[in-house]
Amino acid sequence: MTSDHPHVPHLTTALTGPLQQIESHLLEQQSRIEAWLRAQWRETPAPLYASVDLRNAGFKLAPVDTNLFPAGFNNLNPAFLPLCIQAFQTKMEHICETASNILLVPEEHTRNLFYLESVATLRDIILKAGYQVRIGSTREDLDAPLTLDLPSGGQLTLEPIQRRGNRVYLEGFDPCMVLLNNDLIGGHPEKLRDLEQMVIPPPDLGWTVRLKSGHFTHYHEVATEFARMLDIDPWLINPMFRNCGELNFQKREGEECLLINAGRLLEDIQRKYDEYDIDREPFVVIKADAGTYGMAIMSVTSVDELRSLNRKQRNKMGSMKGGASVSKFLLQEGVYTFETWGAEEAVAEPVVYMIDHFVVGGFYRVHKGRGVHENLNAPGMQFEPLAFVESCINPDTNQAPDAEPNRFYAYGVIARLALLAAARELADHREELAEGAAEAQA
Amino acid sequence: MTSDHPHVPHLTTALTGPLQQIESHLLEQQSRIEAWLRAQWRETPAPLYASVDLRNAGFKLAPVDTNLFPAGFNNLNPAFLPLCIQAFQTKMEHICETASNILLVPEEHTRNLFYLESVATLRDIILKAGYQVRIGSTREDLDAPLTLDLPSGGQLTLEPIQRRGNRVYLEGFDPCMVLLNNDLIGGHPEKLRDLEQMVIPPPDLGWTVRLKSGHFTHYHEVATEFARMLDIDPWLINPMFRNCGELNFQKREGEECLLINAGRLLEDIQRKYDEYDIDREPFVVIKADAGTYGMAIMSVTSVDELRSLNRKQRNKMGSMKGGASVSKFLLQEGVYTFETWGAEEAVAEPVVYMIDHFVVGGFYRVHKGRGVHENLNAPGMQFEPLAFVESCINPDTNQAPDAEPNRFYAYGVIARLALLAAARELADHREELAEGAAEAQA
Repeated sequence: MTSDHPHVPHLTTALTGPLQQIESHLLEQQSRIEAWLRAQWRETPAPLYASVDLRNAGFKLAPVDTNLFPAGFNNLNPAFLPLCIQAFQTKMEHICETASNILLVPEEHTRNLFYLESVATLRDIILKAGYQVRIGSTREDLDAPLTLDLPSGGQLTLEPIQRRGNRVYLEGFDPCMVLLNNDLIGGHPEKLRDLEQMVIPPPDLGWTVRLKSGHFTHYHEVATEFARMLDIDPWLINPMFRNCGELNFQKREGEECLLINAGRLLEDIQRKYDEYDIDREPFVVIKADAGTYGMAIMSVTSVDELRSLNRKQRNKMGSMKGGASVSKFLLQEGVYTFETWGAEEAVAEPVVYMIDHFVVGGFYRVHKGRGVHENLNAPGMQFEPLAFVESCINPDTNQAPDAEPNRFYAYGVIARLALLAAARELADHREELAEGAAEAQA
Repeated sequence: MTSDHPHVPHLTTALTGPLQQIESHLLEQQSRIEAWLRAQWRETPAPLYASVDLRNAGFKLAPVDTNLFPAGFNNLNPAFLPLCIQAFQTKMEHICETASNILLVPEEHTRNLFYLESVATLRDIILKAGYQVRIGSTREDLDAPLTLDLPSGGQLTLEPIQRRGNRVYLEGFDPCMVLLNNDLIGGHPEKLRDLEQMVIPPPDLGWTVRLKSGHFTHYHEVATEFARMLDIDPWLINPMFRNCGELNFQKREGEECLLINAGRLLEDIQRKYDEYDIDREPFVVIKADAGTYGMAIMSVTSVDELRSLNRKQRNKMGSMKGGASVSKFLLQEGVYTFETWGAEEAVAEPVVYMIDHFVVGGFYRVHKGRGVHENLNAPGMQFEPLAFVESCINPDTNQAPDAEPNRFYAYGVIARLALLAAARELADHREELAEGAAEAQA
């Protein structure tokens, strides 16, 4: 397919040697890996959906962020929409087998047309899976249905969510399930609290409660177990991280802890680089522990760089979407992106989408003006989405380990490890709920 | 996609008006239909896989045969292989969640390269779904592995099935499940009887036991329930049928019963044609009740035609694959095929594939030298397979009811009704087994 389609990237990867080793390994062990994953999903069911940002350094392939309220469905290859539809049907049979009416609750920022295209794609997936679906808005200023025209030519109608007792509904529409596509970073709206209807994913997995460090603690466990099974160094698929307590960039409170941890992390990375003869400069990414949208994020290559931040940089690190202030940070090993696209060698970062535990597609964020160690999901960033041309579940052992279907298979495996970490977060959450209920009864 | 690909048929359908009505109806009622089907699958789980031959007369869209041991996987659009893989994963999670090694048992006729390509495709689906799979042969003359080269460039290795106690295995391979792709028309091999391993589909759904009339009795019920829900005439999706007792074409035994029933069926069809102003000649298809491979099948437009069969025709109706003699026949309303392909107006018959209750693809059997009311699956027939270019689960309400994605959706709905009939056959079979076990205990 590649040669006929001008929209398909030719990906050139520097330092492919070690990655080919990871890919070869994953390919050879496919049936063991899948059997292992099957056992994991039996123990810990996957969330309804997720997207995982991966970075592919050639010598290392690792997730750097896992989104439990994914946007970007419009960037997937339309040829794989049937996979999304089928996976959604399967998931619904498990979680709510008699459901027929679904209320989809998206983010409130209705001026982001790209995001609205994603919501429209998600709505179509649900519709085609055979459900009635309407879109409810939590916006307080919405008192009548609002129909928006989309660049793709489609339309999207947002309707005000109404509430009666412990049920939400729309005019003439009584949903049996609420599907959240809102990360609740602005807080958990009153309207959606304590509903008798099932709310999926649970609101407590929104950024009001969830921490990246919690996710990566689970991911560390998952990657360690997986690497043990395959007898590989877990570092090849696992970004190291550290976090410290409360921190105020503007007031320079908690800075000493930050500097010490950043220094130690840089040393740890250098040690691994030495071990693998990697002639690159280690870097650390500092990001809000409860953050999204590429806000409050920066990358540094030395402690000095961190010490000498200017006021503007400090302010930037202190504020989050919706003006919330940030006090908890994650220090994560920076993973280089050595996948590039085209003659300009634009940096490309894969994003993998999953519904239930099925990998349903993905795309590359291609950013022309950005470096190999910068964050690609940053405010105002102009990325060009490049849909994966192949599915991630159709590896071909007759081709090279680095051929597209096999690289995409590798992406799908690593993304599912991050999904498993998210599934364990979800299980923790369920346990907490159960304990809470038990205490309330006692 | 259509215009770029020379291998995509341009389908011209005469008399599309009434079919567009069926298609429009199915499209409008999609979420009701899917909700209804979901409830059906909860009550009666679908078989592991099936293919359904449909005939599209423009005024009528109906299944004419349901195969529970489908071949032809190689004819599906490779772009939809991921759908097959995902559906197979889902099915396996339900029926045998800890399975890892699967023994695939195909038909014995190893000289049919088209069939072997299908087995190879099925093997790849299972492999890519994450299972170990090897192919076991029931052939008595096979005492060592036999590797066959396929026209596609691939290979297939058949290994002799060995048995120890109540388990089958291959050299160095202990399967936990046997997947049958053999309709057992030659009988149920001793080697595969009374196994402690799970055998799927159950051998009793092979043609040693199963009857088409049993299937179409269930289909009649399903079509009636479905038509009632949608408030349409069930005849639009249901071929009428009759059967009579034992019959010997060569000896002309039971002929009177055959003639009477054929005459009544032709009258019944004429009545419906009159009701719908259809200016076509009714015809009846007579086929072996336990038959396959297009053997022992003929179509007649009058009782006289049937009365005056010559010796050759009578002999042809009396024998089946493997030389078995035929004594039970199904008389089925002939459904015209008004889908044609190309300037030659070659007749095209859709075949829809399902894994679990998911429609995973399909293709057209295009036969250039055959008429609109002849059987397209006949010995020596030369059909050209034309893979569906679109999936059957991605209808598009923005396009005409007869646009490809919508026509394919309609095919997928009707095929799933036939699948549901097969699911009920399977349930009957399970009940019989349970009763048998209860009696044995008593």
